[in-house]
Amino acid sequence: MQGKKKVQITALAGDYIGPEIMAAGLKVLEVVGENGRFDYELHEVPFGGAAIDQTGEPLPQETLSACQQSDAVLLAAIGGPKWDHAVKRPEAGLLEIRKKLNLFANIRPTVIEEAMQQYSPLKNGKPVNFVIVRELTSGIYFGTPRQLDENYALDTMRYTKEEVQRITRSAFELARKRKKHVTLVDKANVLATSKFWRRIVAEIALTYPDVAYDACYVDAASMKIISAPQQFDVILTENLFGDILSDEAAEITGSLGTIPSMSLGSSGPALYEPIHGSAPDIAGKGIADPISMIRSVAMMLANSFDRADLVAQITTAINAVISKQIVTPDLGGNASTTEVTDAIITTIKESR
Amino acid sequence: MQGKKKVQITALAGDYIGPEIMAAGLKVLEVVGENGRFDYELHEVPFGGAAIDQTGEPLPQETLSACQQSDAVLLAAIGGPKWDHAVKRPEAGLLEIRKKLNLFANIRPTVIEEAMQQYSPLKNGKPVNFVIVRELTSGIYFGTPRQLDENYALDTMRYTKEEVQRITRSAFELARKRKKHVTLVDKANVLATSKFWRRIVAEIALTYPDVAYDACYVDAASMKIISAPQQFDVILTENLFGDILSDEAAEITGSLGTIPSMSLGSSGPALYEPIHGSAPDIAGKGIADPISMIRSVAMMLANSFDRADLVAQITTAINAVISKQIVTPDLGGNASTTEVTDAIITTIKESR
Ligand SMILES: CC(C)[C@H](C(=O)O)[C@@H](O)C(=O)O
Ligand SMILES: CC(C)[C@H](C(=O)O)[C@@H](O)C(=O)O
Repeated sequence: MQGKKKVQITALAGDYIGPEIMAAGLKVLEVVGENGRFDYELHEVPFGGAAIDQTGEPLPQETLSACQQSDAVLLAAIGGPKWDHAVKRPEAGLLEIRKKLNLFANIRPTVIEEAMQQYSPLKNGKPVNFVIVRELTSGIYFGTPRQLDENYALDTMRYTKEEVQRITRSAFELARKRKKHVTLVDKANVLATSKFWRRIVAEIALTYPDVAYDACYVDAASMKIISAPQQFDVILTENLFGDILSDEAAEITGSLGTIPSMSLGSSGPALYEPIHGSAPDIAGKGIADPISMIRSVAMMLANSFDRADLVAQITTAINAVISKQIVTPDLGGNASTTEVTDAIITTIKESR
Repeated sequence: MQGKKKVQITALAGDYIGPEIMAAGLKVLEVVGENGRFDYELHEVPFGGAAIDQTGEPLPQETLSACQQSDAVLLAAIGGPKWDHAVKRPEAGLLEIRKKLNLFANIRPTVIEEAMQQYSPLKNGKPVNFVIVRELTSGIYFGTPRQLDENYALDTMRYTKEEVQRITRSAFELARKRKKHVTLVDKANVLATSKFWRRIVAEIALTYPDVAYDACYVDAASMKIISAPQQFDVILTENLFGDILSDEAAEITGSLGTIPSMSLGSSGPALYEPIHGSAPDIAGKGIADPISMIRSVAMMLANSFDRADLVAQITTAINAVISKQIVTPDLGGNASTTEVTDAIITTIKESR
């Protein structure tokens, strides 16, 4: 009898704290998978600054191929001062991998549960639970023409109907599994692209009569994320607005080091990564919070491999460890990356 | 003997709560000016939705002329659902007046003083005092080409060297009078226009050796405004980023209804206005907070007419009235617009 083909996972550790938290995530993955619980084959390949140092390119062909041939991609974090004045920049690799894997939907949860209220910078003590669905492969990030001359510069924000349609459907499908409410965030009182989004999204909204739909200007949204985050369920927005608002949203949780994200295409592997960067200031100190990476692993198990059972083990363990205050300095504790990871692993083992 | 020519002030009351708060602002102006303390001639002309209703245009020629011939312009607030589906929109008048009066620098203070801490949604109890200098007449708001077709749409973010230089100088000059620190906010890891800004601003920064200069990505800035607003003194940024961040910044004070702003060109009248909108939901109820408009009047007296003496009277009175809790519902009180305004006026009169 021929064995089932193992799932293929590619890991991109990246730069600064990237390898530290990737190691933590992979250790947890190994433990939840052990004894045949989840079989996978792992490919660890260079990406970002690390890849520039080795090959001159932030996304070498063999890294791209490994990702394309995988069922899922884990990414830790890339970039940092080391490459600030390099010809090639790690960030270019990030934009390229999004485009090449066609990862058009970036999904970031913003959750403040009871136990995490203490970390939130907001007085508002009510629970928060919304998701930002950010368009990731178009808009002003990729639009042409783009010009940088001596006396002027320009960027182009550009969207096609199809680009708006597919991300809109992702948002409405997601809302159906949640609180059934989509808010489009745009700047339709000024931008042509926003008027375009509004027209297309309103049309698609009609085909989801079970999902409530409204729209909000981006400046107003940046206020509501602070004053009334409870009003949101699924925020749908274009690339640049999503970049700004999703970081703002992360900040209201006060626990950046614990938040995962996923980027999806319509086929091919999805990519899972912490929402924070490579944190050069704490790299090498062994104090990076591993939770965002471990949660990214859990998100992968849930979304790419439908393993709710394993996700429950990981999530329960993370919550237990946090409530025991075994946490890194970003959450006010003094545990190390390894101590937090090991505490989570011990809890997982005890639970089965 | 011929009398000195009176200063000319144009008032644009606008829509919804606009006329209510404009009346409050003008009443205070009248009182501080009485008995020859400050002589001015007032021109009240239609603008925004009100002007569309009267003339079909949000910025009629006679309104523009009145502004151009004035020494300063006061604006309350425009727009609202009444004109959401109109051919002409009130907002178009706002963009046009900025362009026609060449108001390239929009300046918005974000201040949280001891007495106002209670209104801030942030736990962080430390005082905050920074200013956003937003470029107001270029960027993606005005860039061409702009297109809205059946199958695609595009906007163009465009800046010339001169546009970046003049706003940069405004920011550095302002920083000199403050804490001597300018932070450029951009997205230089992605946008050509941001790389362009960074190059030009860095050059000008060299000519202000007494002012500290750094730069920050817009997504990171949206986090820092919440997590560490004390780090900022003067934030310099382009039009769209400024729109989003200045509303976010206003929100951390929790007292939108009290914040004024000014928009300046290199010559000609400056424009003073509350940072909030026309608040259709509370229009006609007599409960709009008049403080933002009264502070806009004070900002005008300070900046256009160099009357620090009158500004001190107004500011002291506002603070006294707030600390007596004579405040509108947005600040948790139950006073009316008129009660707050009259309390401020009484305090001004008693103080001289
Ligand atoms: C590093 C940068 C290019 C990137 C972006 O702007 O998309 C980052 O901020 C993110 O949100 O993933
Ligand atoms: C009404 C709108 C066009 C305007 C802008 O985006 O500039 C407003 O949000 C502002 O900030 O003054």
